[in-house]
Amino acid sequence: MTVNGVLRLGEVALRVLDLDKTLTHYTDYIGLSEVMRDKDGQAYLKAWDEHDHHSIVLRETNEAGIDYFAFKVLDDETLTALEKRVAAAGVPVERIDAGVYPKSGRRIQFQIPSGHTMQLYAEKEQNGNTIPTTNPEVLPDPAVVKGMAPTRTDHVLLYGPNIPETAKFLIDALGFELTEQIIDDESGTQVSAFLACSNKAHDIAFVSHPEPGKLHHVSFNLPSVQDIYHAGDIIGKYRISTDIGPTRHGITRGATIYFFDPSGNRNEVFAGGYIRYPDMPVLTWMTSNLGSAIFYVDQELNENFLGVVT
Amino acid sequence: MTVNGVLRLGEVALRVLDLDKTLTHYTDYIGLSEVMRDKDGQAYLKAWDEHDHHSIVLRETNEAGIDYFAFKVLDDETLTALEKRVAAAGVPVERIDAGVYPKSGRRIQFQIPSGHTMQLYAEKEQNGNTIPTTNPEVLPDPAVVKGMAPTRTDHVLLYGPNIPETAKFLIDALGFELTEQIIDDESGTQVSAFLACSNKAHDIAFVSHPEPGKLHHVSFNLPSVQDIYHAGDIIGKYRISTDIGPTRHGITRGATIYFFDPSGNRNEVFAGGYIRYPDMPVLTWMTSNLGSAIFYVDQELNENFLGVVT
Amino acid sequence: MTVNGVLRLGEVALRVLDLDKTLTHYTDYIGLSEVMRDKDGQAYLKAWDEHDHHSIVLRETNEAGIDYFAFKVLDDETLTALEKRVAAAGVPVERIDAGVYPKSGRRIQFQIPSGHTMQLYAEKEQNGNTIPTTNPEVLPDPAVVKGMAPTRTDHVLLYGPNIPETAKFLIDALGFELTEQIIDDESGTQVSAFLACSNKAHDIAFVSHPEPGKLHHVSFNLPSVQDIYHAGDIIGKYRISTDIGPTRHGITRGATIYFFDPSGNRNEVFAGGYIRYPDMPVLTWMTSNLGSAIFYVDQELNENFLGVVT
Amino acid sequence: MTVNGVLRLGEVALRVLDLDKTLTHYTDYIGLSEVMRDKDGQAYLKAWDEHDHHSIVLRETNEAGIDYFAFKVLDDETLTALEKRVAAAGVPVERIDAGVYPKSGRRIQFQIPSGHTMQLYAEKEQNGNTIPTTNPEVLPDPAVVKGMAPTRTDHVLLYGPNIPETAKFLIDALGFELTEQIIDDESGTQVSAFLACSNKAHDIAFVSHPEPGKLHHVSFNLPSVQDIYHAGDIIGKYRISTDIGPTRHGITRGATIYFFDPSGNRNEVFAGGYIRYPDMPVLTWMTSNLGSAIFYVDQELNENFLGVVT
Repeated sequence: MTVNGVLRLGEVALRVLDLDKTLTHYTDYIGLSEVMRDKDGQAYLKAWDEHDHHSIVLRETNEAGIDYFAFKVLDDETLTALEKRVAAAGVPVERIDAGVYPKSGRRIQFQIPSGHTMQLYAEKEQNGNTIPTTNPEVLPDPAVVKGMAPTRTDHVLLYGPNIPETAKFLIDALGFELTEQIIDDESGTQVSAFLACSNKAHDIAFVSHPEPGKLHHVSFNLPSVQDIYHAGDIIGKYRISTDIGPTRHGITRGATIYFFDPSGNRNEVFAGGYIRYPDMPVLTWMTSNLGSAIFYVDQELNENFLGVVT
Repeated sequence: MTVNGVLRLGEVALRVLDLDKTLTHYTDYIGLSEVMRDKDGQAYLKAWDEHDHHSIVLRETNEAGIDYFAFKVLDDETLTALEKRVAAAGVPVERIDAGVYPKSGRRIQFQIPSGHTMQLYAEKEQNGNTIPTTNPEVLPDPAVVKGMAPTRTDHVLLYGPNIPETAKFLIDALGFELTEQIIDDESGTQVSAFLACSNKAHDIAFVSHPEPGKLHHVSFNLPSVQDIYHAGDIIGKYRISTDIGPTRHGITRGATIYFFDPSGNRNEVFAGGYIRYPDMPVLTWMTSNLGSAIFYVDQELNENFLGVVT
Repeated sequence: MTVNGVLRLGEVALRVLDLDKTLTHYTDYIGLSEVMRDKDGQAYLKAWDEHDHHSIVLRETNEAGIDYFAFKVLDDETLTALEKRVAAAGVPVERIDAGVYPKSGRRIQFQIPSGHTMQLYAEKEQNGNTIPTTNPEVLPDPAVVKGMAPTRTDHVLLYGPNIPETAKFLIDALGFELTEQIIDDESGTQVSAFLACSNKAHDIAFVSHPEPGKLHHVSFNLPSVQDIYHAGDIIGKYRISTDIGPTRHGITRGATIYFFDPSGNRNEVFAGGYIRYPDMPVLTWMTSNLGSAIFYVDQELNENFLGVVT
Repeated sequence: MTVNGVLRLGEVALRVLDLDKTLTHYTDYIGLSEVMRDKDGQAYLKAWDEHDHHSIVLRETNEAGIDYFAFKVLDDETLTALEKRVAAAGVPVERIDAGVYPKSGRRIQFQIPSGHTMQLYAEKEQNGNTIPTTNPEVLPDPAVVKGMAPTRTDHVLLYGPNIPETAKFLIDALGFELTEQIIDDESGTQVSAFLACSNKAHDIAFVSHPEPGKLHHVSFNLPSVQDIYHAGDIIGKYRISTDIGPTRHGITRGATIYFFDPSGNRNEVFAGGYIRYPDMPVLTWMTSNLGSAIFYVDQELNENFLGVVT
């Protein structure tokens, strides 16, 4: 639960190899809606229960991966305060004017110790979730419920070096809280950190990896394990390449399937996980128990999970 | 999502007519665990996934209802700051020393405009959720999973006068956010307010009622609609007096059953509801659409819902 | 589990007041697909996981209700054998040539003691469930999954006189089995009979009513209680008139919602219920316990349930 | 749906290496109840919603596997008729007197072409499901709902030679129906057959294997995919050795987890699958599409599945 006003993961910009093929994946199969194509051909997508204009940006290029991720903060005053804290932490901050990113207010951008580009912004145009705000409904317009029908873009898991420093930066400068961590039995080093700025078990996570700035997965929220199974059926029907799942994470207690977009970027559908508060203890997993931490049911890691990133 | 450090509903103190009978209801049927009985015979209970010592206190007396409810705040510094804000709002504050309430740090207590006694505290002894914090498990000790098996005490809905003033106080002094409201079509008055200090659709709610300080219900969280149905089966098996449900709320989108403890206090089991952020629009329901707001499936209010409180 | 080769409820012919409005209800809201309109303007519909051409027939006229219902039997030899058994029971049988009913082989038709017109047939053209029979899929064509998305027409509950005689006829002549019954405490009379020709808890049921030939409801199967809740959300969104639910039946253990089509014919969505075998005991409910039998959660009957039929 | 009166898989007799350890697995983890220990030390277990005395028999010996499996038939007359049909098929039949198997009427026993010992019986003592037959309840005695809480022993999958002959024998002599099959692309041979005597997608299945009489798995039914996930959490908590899952079968459309008892016998928990009738087409999977047939989500077979049997 944020103390410093960081709300949530608001935007993930992915690099893809073939935009058309990739759009079929994200819209027809996952079930996001494309809300805009910009003059450079980038596609903007959103999940049905998001109020903001978009949460996923797809850029066609010749190498998969993540360009940047952005968190939305409470208001412009918060953005100003956070800019000072980032700078005070010795991290150079770049200012980006309103409008440079479509539908977006001004942003600040900086590189975190894991080598990823992070942005913060306070304003984005809202196009709603198709449900009126006066006398609302429980169900949205049926046209926006398709494919796996995620409710929102939920979190990213990133691979890179300097995990303890990265976690410390997000905690100290941005007010994230450490919810769970993996500690190497031999060295005592924190090799993975799960961090939240909300009541969720995580809003972002990091795993130690020699190469900086890599994407392990971007995750989409589903309401229930029945929805996870439905997502699995869609994966099977359209022969989508999978990594693992359906299964359960020990970390976060979430139900999960990992699969790949046509460019090799890993996606996750995720359901459940506990409600978390700042007064709850940090949960620590030792690498000797890594199987249960990652895949609770079979207690075994597959090699893809550890090795394949974009 | 709290700006001022109020975490969650941490304690509800209920008056019951027959403690033994009532304990069977709360422990065997709902599935809370009794963790303590104090020297005055009050019983202290908790749901399985709560880390703090207890969340429900039952006091045997000759009239049902609610003695007080208490929210936990982030830390003692927050408590001090909130005390000032409450006093600054012109509301007299009573200080209660640490230890007066068992397992609890110091508290502040005050009356809100609806006539209810509210407390804040920063410290309560933690007895955990039976899951280790190093190399945790997904499932707790099977002994604490029984009856309807709620994960936590979730929220209260209170009846009383001065709803707009009450909401304004919780928003301005305590940093709650208005998530949904009911407005009377004719008078334009706010007759109900739903308020959150987390990412949930509500942590507390109020409905206009001439008599101050009344309890409509205390609610327990369940993970899924399947669990709601299981709770309904337990209600049927043990012939628990019901109000309504299973059904869906329009407000909060939650799945629900209302039923009564042996003293007539209304309980709710609740599942789902959307994840909420401060930048989402307030949802407004007009009294002319009250049926859908309260019971979305059949769009009709039952008289019990509006009239029966303790 | 049929001994005599009666397979399932294969066709229900309903009378409706306004075909267009009614089709919106059955196709957009419930989610059946219209597969044919005949020269008399009758509409033929099916649920997505049915292999036969259609299971619901809608005829526009000036009075709601049920024209007839038809069970499919194993093969023509079975049909011939059953015709003899019906005739031997003293019930006049009418033969209907193949093709009189579209896509259908020959039928036999007779009136059962409750005053309803029943048909049997062995052949109906199959148009499949959109899933190939070689290398099938788990999910059908997305176009046939809409609205409440029932998998099949499941059963009918009929109101009329002579329940014991009706049950005896279906058991003795057609090989149905009595699965559950309601007995009047005072008179000892069987006032309701639930009958199965499969491993389901019922394929047809009867309740005592002075007027013959009345329809209480036609029921559509859903896979889970989550799907029941989704159906309830659709009912709420489109302001469909409801009778009761979501709730649980004591009889059959099924989860249910009752609602009405625009002509006043009652529909049900139904999920769950136990798997039944002929060696299981008949379950008997006494009228003094009727609340639990019908609506297990709140243990109370509503007046609509007993009184409103078409 | 049986034509010849075979009801269901009623008894599976397993060989286990360490009865005590194995009982913990079947009772505490899976959640069967032990109902009897015989003079030879064999343990008899049942799932909570079974009416007959027991469905699983565990015999301690020095090699894991299956001793025999037994189907219950409608009545003694059916048993007599089936005995004649088995004999007419050229299969030697052994008669076993009532009482030789505890709580059981007379049996007939024979070897099927796959090398497995099969029995049929019409009578077994019934000890019920803890729910009264007059004014029943939806929920059983809470004491019998534990662990994964399966409702019944569902089916076995057996490995052995002569699959086409085995399927033909079950169809022609015992009235089973072929529901799905796997055909080798190159040879056109039927390498796997799924067979039903009920409205389920299968009651028994066979896979081609050089060694006769082997057990692939015995399966227990769960009501929903949420229950499958709960079973997976139990598997994780108690570090039960797993094969694969949670996942979905293409064949039968069932949700599944495969895991091993302490002796290495494979167990399955299974939920869902379609309702089947004799007029539905046989579904055929080609070995070139075997991944989707067996594990629909990731479309890949693991080696354990094909190779490890007891």
